[in-house]
Amino acid sequence: MSPQTDRGAGQARPAVTRLEARAMDLALRAAAEGVRGANPLVGAAIIHDGRILAVGRHRGAGTPHAEIDALRAVRERGEDPRGATAVVTLEPCNHTGRTGPCARALVDAGIARVVYAMADPHAVASGGAVRLRAAGVETVEGPGAGRARELNERWLLATAQGRPYVTAKIAQSLDGRVAAADGTSQWITGPEARRSGHALRARADAVLVGTGTVLADDPRLTARDEHDAPLEHQPLHVVMGARPVPAGAALRDGPWVRIADHDPARVLAELADRGVGHVLVEGGPSVTSAFIGADLVDTLVVHEAPLMLGPGAGATDSLTVGTLGEAVHWRLDGPVRVLGGDLEITLRPAPRRPLAAEPSTPLGEACSPES
Amino acid sequence: MSPQTDRGAGQARPAVTRLEARAMDLALRAAAEGVRGANPLVGAAIIHDGRILAVGRHRGAGTPHAEIDALRAVRERGEDPRGATAVVTLEPCNHTGRTGPCARALVDAGIARVVYAMADPHAVASGGAVRLRAAGVETVEGPGAGRARELNERWLLATAQGRPYVTAKIAQSLDGRVAAADGTSQWITGPEARRSGHALRARADAVLVGTGTVLADDPRLTARDEHDAPLEHQPLHVVMGARPVPAGAALRDGPWVRIADHDPARVLAELADRGVGHVLVEGGPSVTSAFIGADLVDTLVVHEAPLMLGPGAGATDSLTVGTLGEAVHWRLDGPVRVLGGDLEITLRPAPRRPLAAEPSTPLGEACSPES
Repeated sequence: MSPQTDRGAGQARPAVTRLEARAMDLALRAAAEGVRGANPLVGAAIIHDGRILAVGRHRGAGTPHAEIDALRAVRERGEDPRGATAVVTLEPCNHTGRTGPCARALVDAGIARVVYAMADPHAVASGGAVRLRAAGVETVEGPGAGRARELNERWLLATAQGRPYVTAKIAQSLDGRVAAADGTSQWITGPEARRSGHALRARADAVLVGTGTVLADDPRLTARDEHDAPLEHQPLHVVMGARPVPAGAALRDGPWVRIADHDPARVLAELADRGVGHVLVEGGPSVTSAFIGADLVDTLVVHEAPLMLGPGAGATDSLTVGTLGEAVHWRLDGPVRVLGGDLEITLRPAPRRPLAAEPSTPLGEACSPES
Repeated sequence: MSPQTDRGAGQARPAVTRLEARAMDLALRAAAEGVRGANPLVGAAIIHDGRILAVGRHRGAGTPHAEIDALRAVRERGEDPRGATAVVTLEPCNHTGRTGPCARALVDAGIARVVYAMADPHAVASGGAVRLRAAGVETVEGPGAGRARELNERWLLATAQGRPYVTAKIAQSLDGRVAAADGTSQWITGPEARRSGHALRARADAVLVGTGTVLADDPRLTARDEHDAPLEHQPLHVVMGARPVPAGAALRDGPWVRIADHDPARVLAELADRGVGHVLVEGGPSVTSAFIGADLVDTLVVHEAPLMLGPGAGATDSLTVGTLGEAVHWRLDGPVRVLGGDLEITLRPAPRRPLAAEPSTPLGEACSPES
């Protein structure tokens, strides 16, 4: 989203080959298959001697970055990446996190040229591109920038707002109810969907509910496997709202925090201060509606069971929509999965205004003929 | 469902070959891809010289029956069906409808043996099997009967009840609303889903709404293409309810009838008297809930748009479900389709009690070794 990037993509057309453009397309597709969360979606491809040797992607927090994934695939195929071109959807990182800086790994691997779609918004001045160029690696920024930005639109927004990435999960009936008229809701979805819900918890830094859910359902909020045994990674348990958490509440069995606030933005600010990069909202209707109404849900996962509950609470009952023109719009983000008899529908907010998308043949037009 | 069929399948194990069992499996899968409506789902396969030459299926009212479809495919491949075995999921018919009796077509083609899963419930005494045997064709009834009955469970029910097959269509938001709080509902779904809705109308004999929908939306109820031009087949327009249809109502432009009744079973009886074999219910919440509540929906098509309407009417608002244990259960019937940005979810009622399903290897156990 930086002005430099827009100028770079719009004015000085980068010289990339047709093969690099194709590799960028594959890298972008690979990136889209990644896990939405605290990390951006990133894909990478390695080109050598006129061939695309491998495509890699980032597979979630704590796993190798896309460039490392692609280099590993090259080596597994017995190929040598020295002198190759790396095509990446995001500027290679220059920080030592859990996985080490990618810029150094690319230099060490003997990569001669790096084409990346967009600059790392975290490190404009001291990013990996500077380090790459200092090591004599040729860099090109800009090809595929529109698609790369669009892919990470919500991650970029969360980053710009300095807040955690927010995934919300709703388990509902075919007719959009999260409970029957008498409040019964366990279980609307089947074991396969619930297992997927636990995998979502295990990928998040924190799981958030409202005090109403604590009082009604007394959830444990732990991430568990099909035998009810805890998974390796456990999220922080977060309760938002004014009412106190009962002394015997199940969620007190793990690390937990109560934030006595009804405002989603302030709750997220407090979670950011605590180092939470990705929060899973599993609230009841009022908490879920509050986050959606504030445009603070980046990924929405709907588990939809093929049953009807007629009257009963819906997850969006307190959403302020008076007429069709005020509807909250989403769009599918990946395939619809069938989990047991239930559906898993993954969505992201539809943009309020059309994105400045790249034309459909931007790379082909900009590229030099393939030699 | 006839006692003979049950005895035939359960006591005297039919001698079918492994290849015939495999052909029956393929025929059943082909049948499942067919069009739900006034006709049963039927598939067929032709076996000759130890090979499955072709698999066919019925593709909807007015098109060739499954056996004819399979024979046509055999001939298109330049093969001769004389002396072949036909494997069919339903007893070949013996009546001259729009497509002629299949039993005669099989005899004329020189078919030597017919294996069929279940008897035609319309013609127990004078069915095609009698005619086939009279012509010297060997017949075996029973293999795959459980799956064939299960596949056509709702068609068999409608047939037994002497009523039209009922498809209901609901166009709703992600949160299960069919209108916003102010009643606006045009359009919740996009053009691709609406086109699919018009194709549903074109496949039905009648389209039914309540007087409330007529007064609120004034629908035309015609089947139209993407240019708003009428499709070839137009359904009868049916309005149920006590209130009169306004003189200028758009649905009066086609053949229409008003049935001054609120009871779905009585309305269907009247439609059956008028020769309607398949009715598409496109009612508002009260009509849709009435049909669902009476277990009179055989196929449910939900067009679900990725938007949220918060408060607003749901299609099932007047369904009598007080607690989770009283939920109305459905199950997916075919793949979920993405139409534009919307989902098309096709369902059928989940059985009230488990069906007496065949064991998973019934055909293999019952068959004689393949020579």
